[in-house]
Formats: sequence, C-alpha cells, structure tokens
Amino acid sequence: MNREEAFFEFLCRMGDNPLILGHRVSEWCGLAPVLEEDIALANTALDLIGQTQMWLGLAGEVEGAGRSADDLAMLRDVWDFRNVLLAEQPNGDFGQTMMRQYLFDQFHVLLLQRLAESSDERVAGIAAKSVKEVAYHVERSRDTVIGLGDGTSESHRRMQAALDLLWPFAGEMFTDDAVSGQMAEAGIAPQPSTLRADWDAAVRDTMAEATLVIPESDFAHAGGKTGTRHTEHLGHLLTQMQWLQRAYHGATW
Amino acid sequence: MNREEAFFEFLCRMGDNPLILGHRVSEWCGLAPVLEEDIALANTALDLIGQTQMWLGLAGEVEGAGRSADDLAMLRDVWDFRNVLLAEQPNGDFGQTMMRQYLFDQFHVLLLQRLAESSDERVAGIAAKSVKEVAYHVERSRDTVIGLGDGTSESHRRMQAALDLLWPFAGEMFTDDAVSGQMAEAGIAPQPSTLRADWDAAVRDTMAEATLVIPESDFAHAGGKTGTRHTEHLGHLLTQMQWLQRAYHGATW
Repeated sequence: MNREEAFFEFLCRMGDNPLILGHRVSEWCGLAPVLEEDIALANTALDLIGQTQMWLGLAGEVEGAGRSADDLAMLRDVWDFRNVLLAEQPNGDFGQTMMRQYLFDQFHVLLLQRLAESSDERVAGIAAKSVKEVAYHVERSRDTVIGLGDGTSESHRRMQAALDLLWPFAGEMFTDDAVSGQMAEAGIAPQPSTLRADWDAAVRDTMAEATLVIPESDFAHAGGKTGTRHTEHLGHLLTQMQWLQRAYHGATW
Repeated sequence: MNREEAFFEFLCRMGDNPLILGHRVSEWCGLAPVLEEDIALANTALDLIGQTQMWLGLAGEVEGAGRSADDLAMLRDVWDFRNVLLAEQPNGDFGQTMMRQYLFDQFHVLLLQRLAESSDERVAGIAAKSVKEVAYHVERSRDTVIGLGDGTSESHRRMQAALDLLWPFAGEMFTDDAVSGQMAEAGIAPQPSTLRADWDAAVRDTMAEATLVIPESDFAHAGGKTGTRHTEHLGHLLTQMQWLQRAYHGATW
C-alpha cells in the first residue's frame, strides 16, 4: 500500500466512524426518554455527520476517482466501510447508547486534539473544527455516564451491563497497523496506541465517579477499521441509511 | 380505469399479499421458539413467495410493459404495493405472528377456492395450485391459535392481545371497490364482501374454541390494497427485502 492509498484508508476511518455512529444516534430522533435528550442526541448526530462530510470529502479528493462524500457514504457496501465495530453496535437502551458514546467520544477528542497538529493542513483544519464539537460531546456523555452510573440501583445496573457489553469493542480503537504506521511516519496522524494511556486514565476517572467497574479482560474484537470483519449489524444499518440513494440513484434536493 | 388496468391492479393485490406476508414470516427463520415451528414458518414463507411469483408473473404479462415478477417485487416503491395492511404488520411475538397468519389464511383460502372457478383460466390455474398449500396453512395457523388461546394463562393473554391488536386490520380484506367491481363483472374474481359471512363464521368458531373474545368494534383500517396509505412498517420491510436488487441492479444467480 502506497502513501496515497494509506491516506485514503485513514480518511475513510476518520469519516466512517462519525457516519455510522451518527446514523445510530439519529435513530433516537423522536424516541429519546426526555425532550432535551432527544434534541441533544439529534444535535450530536448532526455534528458527527457534518464531520463525516469533511473527512469523506477529503477522502474522495485524495482518491482522485471522482467520488464525492455522498458517493462514499451512500454507495459503498459493508466490506468497504472502515468504522470501528463500536460505532455500529445497536443502541440498546438510552444508557447503553450513552456508554457507547462516551467510550468513543473520549477516544475521539484525544485523537482530534492530536490531528489538529497534523502535518497535512487539510487534516489539521478538519480536526480543529471537529474538536470543538467533540469536546462538548464528551462532556455531555461523560456527565450522563456518571449520572446514570451513580444514580438509582436500576440505572446503575444498566450502565454496568452496558460497560460490560461494550468493553470488548473499546480496544479496536487503539490498534496500530500498516495504515496508521504510514500516517505516523508522515506526521499526518498519531499511532492510535499512543492515545491509549490518556484514554485509560480518563475512562478510569469517569468510571470511578460513576461507581462502575471496568471489566478486567483485555479481549478486543477487531475487523471494523480494516474492513475485514464487521458485525452483522452494519449491513442492516446500511440498508436503511443507503435506501434512498440505492433506490433513486443520483437523487438530489 | 379500463378492464386491463383493473386486472393488473387485482393481480398486484393477489401477488403482494403473499409477498409481503411471506417476507414477514421469513423473518422468523432461525428464530422460532422450536425447531419444528421454525421449519413450518420457513415453508409457509416459501409457499407464499412461490405464489407471488405466479401472480406477479401474470401481472407483468397483463401489463405488457416488460416487467417480470422480480421487477415488480424488487423495484416498486411503497406507494405501488397493493397488499392489505394486515400483511405488513410486524411479527411481534410468535402468537401475534400466528394470529396474523390465521386471520389472513382464513380469508386467503376462501378467496382462492372461489378463484379456482375464475372465468380467466390463468387465474383459475394459479388459484387451484395455491389453494392446496393454503388449505394446509389455515389448518396449521387455526390449530396454533386454538392451542395457544386455550393454553396457559400467559399464552391466552398474549393471543387475546394479538387479536385485539390485529382485528382492526381484518376488515380491509373484505372491502369492494372499482377494481373488484370490474373483476366481479368479468367473472374473474368475487367481490371480497361476498367472502365475509363465511370468514366470520369460521373465525367465530375458531375463536370460541380458542376461548378468545372477538372485539366488538367494526372499525377497519384501509389504504393498503388501494396503495393510498400503507403503515410505516412497509417502507422498512422494503429496505430490507429490496436491498440486493437496489444495490446490485439486475444481479442474478
């Protein structure tokens, strides 16, 4: 894989995470437990999908094959998606959604802070814009995890169950590979593994405040960001997300 | 609407009912409560989808626009579907699925018996083939409704809830309109309203044996078989059912 190919892969990872997570979050629209949360979730989804547009727009530019952000989002099939498996996991209950959000936001904010110093100024620019939104996302999801974790016995039980369920999907965010190696060499992006210590420290603090116990196992599912093996959930998500462009190819409004 | 147009509409109704209900039933594949039911449901779905192929095949022939049964099944959008709303309702639990099946099967078998004497021999031929399968479907769904209705207090409660939920979708099967009027005039198909008395008598017997109470209200949702207003569920079903042909147009195997 040459540098350009690796750059394209990296940008798909950056764009597919907020796309798929943003779509998941948008599924709450009109269904959240209280109105304020409904609006907050919809806003989070919009932020994420807005970020997608920038990352995938740049990906299309780098690829040079004439594909737009919309083409990449709406016309690729499962095996071409590069989001981490965590992002595609189903919403579950509100607590599970917020736990997924926190685990990702905490990673996302650390990554974007580093990307704001990227040697590629287009990457640095997108990251600088995005990090402002994501700093707010992590504040909100962190507060919710703490509030529900250290809440009633029922909410505590659910948040612990959510953490236990999602924990095996956290590790994938920090694995290095040939793509990330090329990005690090070029000074475009940090190796994901270098974010782990800060993430661990932050998550440890949050879970302690939330009175939640971090699972001991380090087992981590993999295959999402390399596209080698997505969970069954991604295909179902894509059938819904891509329906319109699949049925009415090229439709605009 | 001329005779040919009405015939096409009628054939879409005949084909879309088993298509949409068959897809719903196929959603149970691998998930039914016991293995025998799983296989029985899958077989029912296959029968229904096989009938669809005959009805929509004839519909395409009558339309004369070069559309195959596959084209009609996979490339029409919600507003072009002519199935009754009952067929597109979600599965719910196993009892709800079987209640939906019984209410439809009981109508389906009566209709097909009459269609076997259609003045159009292609219609008569498809009906004669289908009625053998559907006679078995109704036997099975009737037995299950009785077994679960007159079963434990939990199964009884669920079956009564299913009947209460689905009853407002039964009436649509028996409404007459311009399409059915033209079919009746031509001796192609009976007016649906002429099937109601026999259906009522059969359903009354079944529910009495099942110790279930038929709701008193005659309110009936409408809009499915005319295509004027489907429930929100049909679009979601189509996104899944049509995905492959939408994403890979013209794919064969």
